[in-house]
Amino acid sequence: MTMDLPSTREMVERLRPLRGGEPLTGAEAERLFSIVVWSVLVEPGDGVAGRLIAGMGPHEALRPLLNGALEAAVVGRADITPAEAAAGVARWMPRLEAPAVRAAIDLAGRARVRLLVPGDQEWPVVVDDLGDHAPLCLWVRGDPQALTAAQASVALVGARAATGYGEHVAMEFGAELAGRGVTVVSGAAYGIDGMAHRAALAAGGQTLALLAGGVDRAYPAGHANLLERIAAAGAVVSEVPCGGAPTKWRFLTRNRLIAALGQATVVVEAGWRSGSLNTAGHAAALGRPLGAVPGPVTSAASAGCHRLLREFDARCVTTVDEVMELLGGGWAGGEGMPGGRATLGGRSAEETRVLDALTSRAGRQTPDVARRCGLAIADVEGVLGLLAMDGAVAQDERGWRRVSSAV
Amino acid sequence: MTMDLPSTREMVERLRPLRGGEPLTGAEAERLFSIVVWSVLVEPGDGVAGRLIAGMGPHEALRPLLNGALEAAVVGRADITPAEAAAGVARWMPRLEAPAVRAAIDLAGRARVRLLVPGDQEWPVVVDDLGDHAPLCLWVRGDPQALTAAQASVALVGARAATGYGEHVAMEFGAELAGRGVTVVSGAAYGIDGMAHRAALAAGGQTLALLAGGVDRAYPAGHANLLERIAAAGAVVSEVPCGGAPTKWRFLTRNRLIAALGQATVVVEAGWRSGSLNTAGHAAALGRPLGAVPGPVTSAASAGCHRLLREFDARCVTTVDEVMELLGGGWAGGEGMPGGRATLGGRSAEETRVLDALTSRAGRQTPDVARRCGLAIADVEGVLGLLAMDGAVAQDERGWRRVSSAV
Repeated sequence: MTMDLPSTREMVERLRPLRGGEPLTGAEAERLFSIVVWSVLVEPGDGVAGRLIAGMGPHEALRPLLNGALEAAVVGRADITPAEAAAGVARWMPRLEAPAVRAAIDLAGRARVRLLVPGDQEWPVVVDDLGDHAPLCLWVRGDPQALTAAQASVALVGARAATGYGEHVAMEFGAELAGRGVTVVSGAAYGIDGMAHRAALAAGGQTLALLAGGVDRAYPAGHANLLERIAAAGAVVSEVPCGGAPTKWRFLTRNRLIAALGQATVVVEAGWRSGSLNTAGHAAALGRPLGAVPGPVTSAASAGCHRLLREFDARCVTTVDEVMELLGGGWAGGEGMPGGRATLGGRSAEETRVLDALTSRAGRQTPDVARRCGLAIADVEGVLGLLAMDGAVAQDERGWRRVSSAV
Repeated sequence: MTMDLPSTREMVERLRPLRGGEPLTGAEAERLFSIVVWSVLVEPGDGVAGRLIAGMGPHEALRPLLNGALEAAVVGRADITPAEAAAGVARWMPRLEAPAVRAAIDLAGRARVRLLVPGDQEWPVVVDDLGDHAPLCLWVRGDPQALTAAQASVALVGARAATGYGEHVAMEFGAELAGRGVTVVSGAAYGIDGMAHRAALAAGGQTLALLAGGVDRAYPAGHANLLERIAAAGAVVSEVPCGGAPTKWRFLTRNRLIAALGQATVVVEAGWRSGSLNTAGHAAALGRPLGAVPGPVTSAASAGCHRLLREFDARCVTTVDEVMELLGGGWAGGEGMPGGRATLGGRSAEETRVLDALTSRAGRQTPDVARRCGLAIADVEGVLGLLAMDGAVAQDERGWRRVSSAV
């Protein structure tokens, strides 16, 4: 199979609708069209294609590929070996056909999908943290600005087989994060993902859905309506061209985009082998903070979260404040260690001992109190004075007693 | 107030019942009697008393105290300053009276309580890890050997205000630990503690209850029967003499004994300010491994456990195997990080991609499969061969298809 590139003029015409109707120069159109061809040819995250395109430019790398001369074209390059190029050619060429490229563009135009490429103002530069495995382009249904507008973003992910508990937490977290202006990033799956998106929408916030297949088709089909609403308030995004099927492999590679687009990733509920652990793994590999919500140890739906806590040093998060701490916004708190010879309910050790030695009924003289609590009389006098200022104890002619309203 | 010591002969007579009827030398009786006096005079964990007794010996330290000459007796010592001795005298003397000592011994005799002191064969040397704050003696109802017999011990503690979930976990853990020959150490309180003891008893295992007051009285009263059963199968233990009240302060100091007697401490369920966090703090201070059982973030009864996970680096434990890992018995496991470009359900990335490109219905030729999965034809052939050996795919005249029983 082979393919001839259309004329530059035809490229401009076909691509304009995907770029908001903005005028395009011939060079721009050639670059964009080449990126589209690449995104049809290669699977998401193909590192050789990533290096080739970054090193040579999309158009400049495509020409020798189409002419069967790629291996020769990379001779002498430091970033790609001829063997890698040859393996790439073998991987990519089976897909080479003009109708597939035309279909991707036509489907995108009909679904009003925007095409984003690196260098665009709306390009989310955070995905470039993926290096050679960064997406070549992004296909966006909705507002491309949603990808970059927010000050903060959190990936909220979890199992499809969620429990009522997990859905409750996803709902709470999604709504409260959105209410604080944080973009909620997720994968639009049933269960946790769907709840996170829904809650963000209900709170009037912004949310991003990353799909494993083309954004022109609703996946899962039961979330068609939800995806419409996400596109209307935020964006539905994929690196796979329109018409592309959501394969298992693409779910795994899609997960790296969720992890990259979230400043932090939080797994709300996940079974022992849930796909959301894969997202967590990507977040960790990217150096993004990783949180996991604990749940009952009797619930298989929380086993993956506990695994993240035990084996992968995920942070235990139980509230939205704790999620915000992951973002490093200076919320970090932490009180003193509860233990040692420290305080109970704000009382010092000596105060606790003196209170132990008092009752609210009968008054007790200081020496009696000292004997009961095992402290020196002089110390007891001092402590009683402090407690009296607090209103915790009172003295009358029969001695000291506890004021019952105080603990 | 002052106190004259009884004759050595009287000491021997009074103390023999507390030592299983074994004969006592005069020197032994003097040492034991002095320890009893000290345990009446000082509150648990009094570091100055601990150092004084360790440095001078219990009898040798008591004599100058009774003669009003302690301050002079410590002049020149490196371990106690005269000021510390003076403060100690002020703290201890208000309690000095002969009837209190007599009562402690009589109550113990009547309740068949054994008195253990450092150096006894049954003395649990692990409490000496508490240093200056180690107990001066232990009063034991039940079998003193239960304190040292077990190969392994785990402190299983938690809130009185436990939920059904927490009680369920305490029950499971207590029973399974006891079934593995691990002594279950706890505090006999309502809620988690009680469940842990009950489960250990039901499993025919050994359990230790550490009380904040004297072991002659049941606290809480509603656990009188449970405490009987613990004493019959294991031991009920306190450092506070018989007749001593369980004050708040003594609960806090009792907690250090629970932490010391468990090789590891596990908090099953605890509110934000639960007393079991104090036990956890002691375990951490002693360098004992600390575990916390997670629970629903919506449950206030798990907030303390989550706090231990977040702020104090407790290990998240969800099963008894994970509790056993805390003991460092070589159970440590851990699989590879679930994520990155790794496997899903045991399949390699390429296998997943090839399976994605097949259906169980229609056969597909290799070039078609290669195009669909974006891999080279030669690679697809290799992968199909491996999958066919697995029985995951099959080939007929129309091409390759997935075998539906395989995932």
